[in-house]
Amino acid sequence: MRLDLNQDVAALTAAIVDIESVSGDEKALADAIEEALRALPHLTVERDGDTVIARTSQGRSERVVIAGHIDTVPVNRNLPSRVEGDRLYGCGTGDMKAGVAVQLKLATLAETNRDVTYFFYECEEIEEARNGLKRIGDTRPELLKADFAVLMEPSGGIIEGGCQGTIRVDVKVLGERAHSARSWMGSNAIHSAGAVLDVLRAYEPRRPVVDGLEFHEGLNAVFISGGVAGNVIPDECVVTVNHRFAPDRSLEDAEKHLREVFTGYDVTVVDGAAGARPGLTHPAAAAFVEAIGGASMARAKLGWTDVARFSALGIPAVNFGPGEPSLSHTKDEYVEIPRIFAGEERMRAWLTA
Amino acid sequence: MRLDLNQDVAALTAAIVDIESVSGDEKALADAIEEALRALPHLTVERDGDTVIARTSQGRSERVVIAGHIDTVPVNRNLPSRVEGDRLYGCGTGDMKAGVAVQLKLATLAETNRDVTYFFYECEEIEEARNGLKRIGDTRPELLKADFAVLMEPSGGIIEGGCQGTIRVDVKVLGERAHSARSWMGSNAIHSAGAVLDVLRAYEPRRPVVDGLEFHEGLNAVFISGGVAGNVIPDECVVTVNHRFAPDRSLEDAEKHLREVFTGYDVTVVDGAAGARPGLTHPAAAAFVEAIGGASMARAKLGWTDVARFSALGIPAVNFGPGEPSLSHTKDEYVEIPRIFAGEERMRAWLTA
Repeated sequence: MRLDLNQDVAALTAAIVDIESVSGDEKALADAIEEALRALPHLTVERDGDTVIARTSQGRSERVVIAGHIDTVPVNRNLPSRVEGDRLYGCGTGDMKAGVAVQLKLATLAETNRDVTYFFYECEEIEEARNGLKRIGDTRPELLKADFAVLMEPSGGIIEGGCQGTIRVDVKVLGERAHSARSWMGSNAIHSAGAVLDVLRAYEPRRPVVDGLEFHEGLNAVFISGGVAGNVIPDECVVTVNHRFAPDRSLEDAEKHLREVFTGYDVTVVDGAAGARPGLTHPAAAAFVEAIGGASMARAKLGWTDVARFSALGIPAVNFGPGEPSLSHTKDEYVEIPRIFAGEERMRAWLTA
Repeated sequence: MRLDLNQDVAALTAAIVDIESVSGDEKALADAIEEALRALPHLTVERDGDTVIARTSQGRSERVVIAGHIDTVPVNRNLPSRVEGDRLYGCGTGDMKAGVAVQLKLATLAETNRDVTYFFYECEEIEEARNGLKRIGDTRPELLKADFAVLMEPSGGIIEGGCQGTIRVDVKVLGERAHSARSWMGSNAIHSAGAVLDVLRAYEPRRPVVDGLEFHEGLNAVFISGGVAGNVIPDECVVTVNHRFAPDRSLEDAEKHLREVFTGYDVTVVDGAAGARPGLTHPAAAAFVEAIGGASMARAKLGWTDVARFSALGIPAVNFGPGEPSLSHTKDEYVEIPRIFAGEERMRAWLTA
């Protein structure tokens, strides 16, 4: 399947949506992207697994990364794509092939005011170990080096800066078994876990402003389990708590905070990932915000995204994609076609002004 | 295997302990019991599955039932039986072959002051549907008819009167899903379940005196579960609550009480069984208490036992067995040999005074 990069960005979006690329099965789309990019003499193109990296080398004083994942969640009877009015429907339209199409259109620019590294990477929607951007960052971190990075993840056409960190802990409450006919002989761990839920219910999440954007933390039970048998006083209850924390705290800070909040309980860290500061004060980032429409077009990203990989390398990074995040992974996923054009236009202005 | 009913009750206990009879596999023991009883001309013996029923027919004004189950929980490297000092160790010694041995010794009495129906029944330790006493009660309830019933369940050598009822309900708490990065968009059902645990923690169980015996109720969470995924605010949490209630309340009363306690929640009854009043004021029961040693020898039974089946038929019933209930189902189960002799002696006195 050949990709015609001369068609308009909406038609190009539809074309790549129609090349099915569920996580782990991106080869056909990676092949098409690689072939199209190799035809452009101003780019140096590399292939690594099903990730395609294309770089300009104009000797500019700044380099920026523009990145997008080419995989989608499983198709849910929502392919091939179809247009209804101003909307393009289909699996992966907003998350994030509309963004990938914008990347491809930008990649055709023979001359830009900044050197650009384009990433088209695989396996973002599944376990982190298979994530193409993570792999390149681990094996060839020099390829990620830049003054600023834009991920084309769906952000509703505005800039989402940074991302919150996430940490999950198991809070274990112990008791003592007894027959439920003589419950006072034991100690009910589920009842005792009520005190953990009290802590969660009383918790006041912070809403700190970091680099000019307001974040909004959260502390929530995501699982609870306890119980031995229908006639036994349970001796253990585990509450799994997910804390989403603003990027003014490190992962270590967040763990320390949770151990304070749950003082006296057995707290085990299940997993965690640091957040990322928006970094919008960096000149390259500020220029991007200006080109997109100013500070009113920026808000904090509350979920965790791959921008944190750039942040970990000291590179400011934002999400900016035409998709609507709330439609991601839904059967009725669509993207507003005018937003794809607007996204391309603004990115082009930023790179060519 | 032949059973010699002329040996003393301790030796007889050891003999029947050594005939393995895990629930569902009681045939050998039922055969031995049937054969031994058929040799006694004063008894009418019937076999129903692996349940053996033997009746005297002396035309007495009162009839009593003396019943015991012949099955055990699975053997746990604790057979054959062994004697250490005053203790007989082995699977099923206390629960309840010592009681069955007492029954068999009593059954040899050609003349008693009350007519007696002896039940030796199968499958008490497993699912209720297979319980031999339940089956006879369902198919031939006339065989259970009596003025009073004694179950030889382990009761530590004292009388345990009646039994508490039990009811389990699921208390379901609903919420609304959201991504845990934007938790305020949803409603956390696990957090809301904290209010259910508050109710349980604050609950003051009754300790009512019923027919002269003090019961002790309980209201406990026995299971809790909730959670969708590690990054999702959960929309459902279910707390399974077990209420043990004194026999001055019916099962319907208990359900009504729980619906009041958990007003505003979705309450579903999972299962339940009525309790049984001690009924010790009935003349036949009072005579039994007197023969055993008076009111100080009686306490309330807090767990549920098959006495409730008699209670449901309007027949007062008690537990009275030489076993120690706390040792039931343990690897180191044993019975105090002097208690077996004492149990036989007192029962014999009651039936022959």
